[in-house]
Amino acid sequence: MSAAPVELRLLPDSAKVDESGGLEIGGLPVAELAERFGTPLFVYDEAHLRARCAEAVAAFGPGVSYASKAFWCLAMARLVVEEGMSVDVSTGGELHVALAAGVPPERITLHGNNKSDDELTRALTAGVGRIVVDSFDEIDRIERLVPMLGSAPPAVLLRVTPGIEAHTHEYVRTGQNDSKFGFTLSTGLAERAVGMAAASPAMDLIGIHVHIGSQVFVADFFRDAVSTIADFFASVGLHELSIGGGIGVAYVADEHAPTITEWADAVHAAATASGLGAHITAEPGRSIAAAAAVTLYRVGTIKELPGLRTYVSVDGGMSDNPRPVLYGSGYEAFLAREVLAPRPRTVRIVGKHCESGDVIVPDAQLPEDVAVGDLLVTPVTGAYGHSMASNYNKVPRPAVVFVSGGVAREVVRRETLDDLLRLDVDG
Amino acid sequence: MSAAPVELRLLPDSAKVDESGGLEIGGLPVAELAERFGTPLFVYDEAHLRARCAEAVAAFGPGVSYASKAFWCLAMARLVVEEGMSVDVSTGGELHVALAAGVPPERITLHGNNKSDDELTRALTAGVGRIVVDSFDEIDRIERLVPMLGSAPPAVLLRVTPGIEAHTHEYVRTGQNDSKFGFTLSTGLAERAVGMAAASPAMDLIGIHVHIGSQVFVADFFRDAVSTIADFFASVGLHELSIGGGIGVAYVADEHAPTITEWADAVHAAATASGLGAHITAEPGRSIAAAAAVTLYRVGTIKELPGLRTYVSVDGGMSDNPRPVLYGSGYEAFLAREVLAPRPRTVRIVGKHCESGDVIVPDAQLPEDVAVGDLLVTPVTGAYGHSMASNYNKVPRPAVVFVSGGVAREVVRRETLDDLLRLDVDG
Repeated sequence: MSAAPVELRLLPDSAKVDESGGLEIGGLPVAELAERFGTPLFVYDEAHLRARCAEAVAAFGPGVSYASKAFWCLAMARLVVEEGMSVDVSTGGELHVALAAGVPPERITLHGNNKSDDELTRALTAGVGRIVVDSFDEIDRIERLVPMLGSAPPAVLLRVTPGIEAHTHEYVRTGQNDSKFGFTLSTGLAERAVGMAAASPAMDLIGIHVHIGSQVFVADFFRDAVSTIADFFASVGLHELSIGGGIGVAYVADEHAPTITEWADAVHAAATASGLGAHITAEPGRSIAAAAAVTLYRVGTIKELPGLRTYVSVDGGMSDNPRPVLYGSGYEAFLAREVLAPRPRTVRIVGKHCESGDVIVPDAQLPEDVAVGDLLVTPVTGAYGHSMASNYNKVPRPAVVFVSGGVAREVVRRETLDDLLRLDVDG
Repeated sequence: MSAAPVELRLLPDSAKVDESGGLEIGGLPVAELAERFGTPLFVYDEAHLRARCAEAVAAFGPGVSYASKAFWCLAMARLVVEEGMSVDVSTGGELHVALAAGVPPERITLHGNNKSDDELTRALTAGVGRIVVDSFDEIDRIERLVPMLGSAPPAVLLRVTPGIEAHTHEYVRTGQNDSKFGFTLSTGLAERAVGMAAASPAMDLIGIHVHIGSQVFVADFFRDAVSTIADFFASVGLHELSIGGGIGVAYVADEHAPTITEWADAVHAAATASGLGAHITAEPGRSIAAAAAVTLYRVGTIKELPGLRTYVSVDGGMSDNPRPVLYGSGYEAFLAREVLAPRPRTVRIVGKHCESGDVIVPDAQLPEDVAVGDLLVTPVTGAYGHSMASNYNKVPRPAVVFVSGGVAREVVRRETLDDLLRLDVDG
């Protein structure tokens, strides 16, 4: 293992090393944030989030949608809209947050492999901009609901499964034929769905949606997706093509990912090469939010097992970051007090949950002098951390702060112990 | 795959097939429960829970503790105490629920590999019955806090890692030496900890705790644990030995697990054989709660991919049952309207989350005529479902009902869409 310090490229844009060697984000020492808001704490660099949204809008044009499942709350919803993005939601809950934040309905796209009557009704009543139709059952449902509600026929994209196997974790791979999502291209289901949707008075079919998976590092796969879909797209004579999301993000030192701009360039070049004259849009989520945030943990226990391993336990774990236990995902870790310190010591960073799988970094490198009470930082935790958080072991979920220009604002407060009883029916 | 109906042994004790072939639990048709409380829904057979608690008390005697991490809420806390069990908690949150429910503090045991000052302070102030000390850092912490708080020295068990590799999923394996939990026996750390704790005026060392893992199907492993620890236990001259929890539960047709009574018999026989004169106790969690409950889902979408697979999508998923995606855990599924129907059709049951990994049963057997709108039942979901639930994709967490003698009571209400905004700091 390398004893090198953490690579600064993995930190949020505004991250700096202050004169004492400690970490600053948004002009604020993270040690102060930990004192003020407690730990574990999600710290988002607001300028980083805004810059990535602006990059997406510049790269894909208006209509590019933030994938809310990556990280979603009222403050994030307002931020993405302020930066000119649209929003994609995949459930009634994500839609509810968007509407509560004042996202203009026409900027909202509703996704989902199993949209309920309630979810479709809410979307139709609010007048969302797009519904990405995923199944024949959903076509039936929309045909039943639209006349019943007397709502305008929604603009619809059909989700098509292009039959591409992206090299990513099977749990986040969606382009292959064997998928719960969409209409399969190769077996003719996509063609049949286009026929039905185009003929339906209950919907206005305007385009096709193709998503090949998540955390894809090679822009080539998106080129393949575009060229695979190009003939079909031309044959159906539609205007809009969404290539979904899925561009990868570097979590650790040996990972390198394309930028949003490089991703868009690859997609646009493929479209040109295929003679595809569509309005092309996309749904970045992870690439907007992941690297914008770090998690701050306090080290509580250090256990040296001679000849085996050293365990460093922090005050969070699988309840605030389930990605390591879900996907075997890797993270870096370092100490907030000395960002540039060499990290010669190999340890296992674990959480406080009553479960052996509660591992944050299985083989982390840390400075030799890591001690109980230290503030530990894991970068690139802005996506699928807070959004997948649980109350396992009745651990309250962390607070979320946005920092910018020397000012911190709490956008999601920390759960309290009493919050844990909120859903109990007492009696 | 077998087309056999679900085995009734996997259902809660009070489960019955009514005259129309539908499922009843606690004297109530589950179809009525779904109508009344909505879906997804956790339905617990209260008599089943009480019978397993009573079995544990009969098998191990008073002091046997329910492992709250398996499933925990005010109603469950009151139930286990009414049935004569004690309670083990592993965080301040689980402790908070126990105290809020009125669990007598002397019946509470505090666990945890990384107990914070706050958690220890609350436990010491409340006067919990036992603290299971897990690390040298924790010994230091208790020695600092007890005089500071002026509290009585707590009764303490030391958690010892016996060096046994139970054949279970690595995430829930804890008996091996390479563990974040406890003091290793083989390297002498356990002996050193006993010396320190016995000499400390800040704690009253009364026993040893040994936990070898979870979902262990072979009672032999517990015999091994007892005999491995026997010499050490005799050498330290203490009175109490907790063997932790971990006895397995059958989730699917090809699994068979010992009963709580058989588990206790194996442990007691091993103790006798080893000449171990301790008061032996245990911490069952899964074996109390898992088979007591079923989850009810509504089928929303059925997608047939010719030559590939059929996907049956329900209205929940990895947010209410993350065990399949976390551990690859298997579940059975059947239709509430016809419990004894043959199940010749192989399908993949998936949830509504925007993620391919959102699978509930990868290769489920269902009746040929499964249809949109059907009520689908997954049994043995009473442990680590509700307790690990998340709001991923902003999906509200399901309600929990206890049923008994023809009466249903909601003990945890369903989250609302507005609940999802509760932690947002608006402004």
